[in-house]
Amino acid sequence: MHAKKDISARSLAVHRKMGGKIRIAPVMPVRTRGDLSVLYTPGVGAVASLLARHPARAREYTIKGKMVAVISDGSAVLGLGNIGPLGALPVMEGKCVLFKEFAGVDAFPIVLNTQDPDRVVEAIVAIAPGFGGINLEDFAAPQCFEIEERVKRALDIPVMHDDQHGTAIVVLAALMNAATAVNKRVASLRVVIVGAGAAGSAIARLLLQAGVKDVVVCDSKGIINRTRAEKHKRDLARATNPRRIRGGLFEALAGADAVIGVSGPNSIAKDHIAAMGPSAIVFALANPMPEIMPEDAREAGARIIATGRSDYPNQVNNVLAFPGIFRGALDNRVRKISDGMKLRAAKNLAALVDKPTPHNIIPEPFDPRVVPAVARAIR
Amino acid sequence: MHAKKDISARSLAVHRKMGGKIRIAPVMPVRTRGDLSVLYTPGVGAVASLLARHPARAREYTIKGKMVAVISDGSAVLGLGNIGPLGALPVMEGKCVLFKEFAGVDAFPIVLNTQDPDRVVEAIVAIAPGFGGINLEDFAAPQCFEIEERVKRALDIPVMHDDQHGTAIVVLAALMNAATAVNKRVASLRVVIVGAGAAGSAIARLLLQAGVKDVVVCDSKGIINRTRAEKHKRDLARATNPRRIRGGLFEALAGADAVIGVSGPNSIAKDHIAAMGPSAIVFALANPMPEIMPEDAREAGARIIATGRSDYPNQVNNVLAFPGIFRGALDNRVRKISDGMKLRAAKNLAALVDKPTPHNIIPEPFDPRVVPAVARAIR
Repeated sequence: MHAKKDISARSLAVHRKMGGKIRIAPVMPVRTRGDLSVLYTPGVGAVASLLARHPARAREYTIKGKMVAVISDGSAVLGLGNIGPLGALPVMEGKCVLFKEFAGVDAFPIVLNTQDPDRVVEAIVAIAPGFGGINLEDFAAPQCFEIEERVKRALDIPVMHDDQHGTAIVVLAALMNAATAVNKRVASLRVVIVGAGAAGSAIARLLLQAGVKDVVVCDSKGIINRTRAEKHKRDLARATNPRRIRGGLFEALAGADAVIGVSGPNSIAKDHIAAMGPSAIVFALANPMPEIMPEDAREAGARIIATGRSDYPNQVNNVLAFPGIFRGALDNRVRKISDGMKLRAAKNLAALVDKPTPHNIIPEPFDPRVVPAVARAIR
Repeated sequence: MHAKKDISARSLAVHRKMGGKIRIAPVMPVRTRGDLSVLYTPGVGAVASLLARHPARAREYTIKGKMVAVISDGSAVLGLGNIGPLGALPVMEGKCVLFKEFAGVDAFPIVLNTQDPDRVVEAIVAIAPGFGGINLEDFAAPQCFEIEERVKRALDIPVMHDDQHGTAIVVLAALMNAATAVNKRVASLRVVIVGAGAAGSAIARLLLQAGVKDVVVCDSKGIINRTRAEKHKRDLARATNPRRIRGGLFEALAGADAVIGVSGPNSIAKDHIAAMGPSAIVFALANPMPEIMPEDAREAGARIIATGRSDYPNQVNNVLAFPGIFRGALDNRVRKISDGMKLRAAKNLAALVDKPTPHNIIPEPFDPRVVPAVARAIR
């Protein structure tokens, strides 16, 4: 916790000094009347006229071909919950910095002062023309599902809620290599997901797409079933739990090969892990405090452990996915990010680890092969 | 026209080569895990928590203290009319370049895919939290008046429709010096404004604020009066035309000291200018083709002529105002740009011309004193 405090203090100081983590950089300077007449009036009138007649050519002549909006309503920020737009802003700025630094993608943060799904969708659709892609971020479940679906339907540019799909891609990549490291086939794994929010739902669906047959999803009330009040949980229950088991986390984990925690701190106990099958795979991804500490999971018999933290091996980090996804989507003018693209991205990411071992199932964020490997999948 | 064609061709080529005129520049690079943990998770969590508790401090810790949104619905772009959001985008990008190059203000272009005033207002209010100011641009009259008023009322950051107020400030500055150059007092001028759109309405109101008593506004139907169908024109008629004159442009201009054209090409004839009083002041600001060509105005007896063009003396150009206005508004944390600030900005701008003469009534855009002089007025 001392290191954590140090990082917090340092981050506050650095943020205050910077006063915002991004700036706007003109591509060409304006030094003369000639520059002014080419970049602005009257010259820009010729570009405006051209694009009025041929809007599709905006990708060539404007930032539309390059710019991603990173949008949040601040309803589910990091582990902090519903802290509103200004609480979300430094996180979105950080994401824009990572887009640029890791993949050369220009991204701009937009935080919304509404959390009403209708208004959120209308605002995003209204500002979309100038962007080449939209990264939704830190929207709370269950509204995030409806918002993403409606925005996708309304627009012809790629839209991705990263807490869902970015997370799911990296988790699948890590799970593929974890299975290899313990000599199991990923499709044959019995997988339990703890948490039925944005990440949990998307992970479940992508694992099913990847051929995993036995996926069980739990939340704080136990194994989710078809009688739940929330529609997205009923839908999820219908798609998962093929053995129709009932009960809580214990019942779900009995004999399981892998557990993927995307819920909150300390929601998995050592006894839970002890109930799992041999060579247990434990992903405890809540950040900064995982569902179970790696030391405890190890003691309870886990063979492979991954977290969201940088101070343990096997860090499952979204930065492995989102920069490459939008790099590929922009370069290849992709209109929708399909399930097939997400599966390929996970496979490409997993393939970067030559010989998966229990301590090495996922590449490092700074591995220069990561962005091109993911981008190749989005076409 | 040959030069115009050259500029258009060159502008198209340069825009295509650049592929958008701005980029996002991170303030700090991300080279190590340490950088990642300070700029993004887990460190950024401390900043997010702080701003959740104290949103007003976002100006210190995020881009909110620096970033202006340049927003358009593409309904009245340059002289091109309603060409939609993608036609407007290169113009908005150009404006963002000028903000940065002239005043160091970071500005980001947002183009809207709706022209419905309710939806426009809702979208702008929804995305406002991350911005320190809003520059509305190229919104058509009369909706622009309602949109600006409603957005201003809803937000606690400065909001300015530049086609109205930026134009009015520069016109007033030029008119003050023009009056001096012909030994008249600005308050005693008889001024005719040709065009009752965004610019014409705002110019009329700012001249009244500056003490000009005799302002008459004409549009294509003649002198506007209190029986017009459009509410904003009835309101304008009530505030202007103290002599209650009737008729068309001829009747308005008989004996007038100054005419300010903000309408369209060739809407003022030589005979109109000939009907004006002695030492006539003619601002023909339609761009690129003015209401009357300077040569014709001169022949008809005009003493002082200003246009929006860079190839004639006395260029009335919004770039003299908007960068300094938002520079001042951000530096001084101004919440509303008041009439008093606009008047002071015009006076400060006018005062930069030491000895106004008929060929020198307004400073050059590249004069380094311009931005500080205007910014000083916005406090």
